[in-house]
Amino acid sequence: MTDRAPKKTDLMTEAERDAYHAEKMKKKKEARNRILATKTEEKGLVIVHTGKGKGKSTAAFGMVFRALGHGFTVGVVQFVKGAWGTGERTVLERFPDLVTIKAMGEGFTWDVADRQRDIAAARAAWDAAKVMIADERYKLILLDELNIVLRYDYLPLDEVLAVLHTKPRDTHVIITGRNAKDELIELADLVTEMTEIKHPFRAGVKAQKGIEF
Amino acid sequence: MTDRAPKKTDLMTEAERDAYHAEKMKKKKEARNRILATKTEEKGLVIVHTGKGKGKSTAAFGMVFRALGHGFTVGVVQFVKGAWGTGERTVLERFPDLVTIKAMGEGFTWDVADRQRDIAAARAAWDAAKVMIADERYKLILLDELNIVLRYDYLPLDEVLAVLHTKPRDTHVIITGRNAKDELIELADLVTEMTEIKHPFRAGVKAQKGIEF
Repeated sequence: MTDRAPKKTDLMTEAERDAYHAEKMKKKKEARNRILATKTEEKGLVIVHTGKGKGKSTAAFGMVFRALGHGFTVGVVQFVKGAWGTGERTVLERFPDLVTIKAMGEGFTWDVADRQRDIAAARAAWDAAKVMIADERYKLILLDELNIVLRYDYLPLDEVLAVLHTKPRDTHVIITGRNAKDELIELADLVTEMTEIKHPFRAGVKAQKGIEF
Repeated sequence: MTDRAPKKTDLMTEAERDAYHAEKMKKKKEARNRILATKTEEKGLVIVHTGKGKGKSTAAFGMVFRALGHGFTVGVVQFVKGAWGTGERTVLERFPDLVTIKAMGEGFTWDVADRQRDIAAARAAWDAAKVMIADERYKLILLDELNIVLRYDYLPLDEVLAVLHTKPRDTHVIITGRNAKDELIELADLVTEMTEIKHPFRAGVKAQKGIEF
């Protein structure tokens, strides 16, 4: 804030600034209410979290936890082994009646350079996902790291798009992972890109429990 | 995928593609291990989630839940009233021994165009935050929407930076909100920007329980 040009409010007295602020907030609120009045539709959304930054899966899990807090039935399918840790799992297990987890123990591993096994694991995870999506009891389904699997062409994109396109109207589906396919972004209702501005790895800090996993 | 140039792998047989993939994954893993070997430091991070996209607070809550899953003591200070809903709160209340919530009921409201009251509420929230930050029992502290308060100059930026700069070494602090101050980004260890690529509001879909709140 040292070299910036003076703001309008810099030249005001405190009382003038209060009045200026009151007027500005009033206008902001009115504008917001006008916008909200035009938003009338409710429907299940296809949500994509992509980009190279952090927070894609974490924000998706935040939505899962929020939905559980509302008492909704939630499904979680993990397409990449080890993408999330014991922290999430412990919390999910507090809601045994509401949450179904399909963590593909034999999933896409990065570690084992066995493409055919990874393809089979992706298929098994996707088949589990399809069953959940077809089941209208699920209000929210997280397909964690599905984008990675699609990126490597381990599942036919057309099949995934078709299932999402014909999902039950009220079901929300969240798909995470970097490099989301253009066709998926096209189909989605809500797409957020997480961009890394600064990362502690650059400063030699290692991954830590509770932050990275 | 219709108009793209052919990829190297398009011209391979399945067996060639498997071998190519195995080699690529092996190199990827080796590169990753080399990088990880250089990351040796553990310390509490200052983390900032900013940008105009969704997921800033949701990802922060995801980290809070993950930390709770690990049995860590967590503090949450809400600087903007109504920024989060009953979903998060219900889940947090499942961990009464681990989590302390300071939701400023009289906080920055947008609704009441009363700047002096908002400044007083910001100060009260910040004072509660300072007590938590000084208390080494807290492993993770979320200062939700603090960026909004700083943006409106409701708290002295220098004071906030000084407290973050001298926080206990092992404490993680997450700060959310759009328009993060440059000086805060400079101080932070990990900064992620959430960018809106596509939003259902544009298509007339309204905010929904479990997704927006």
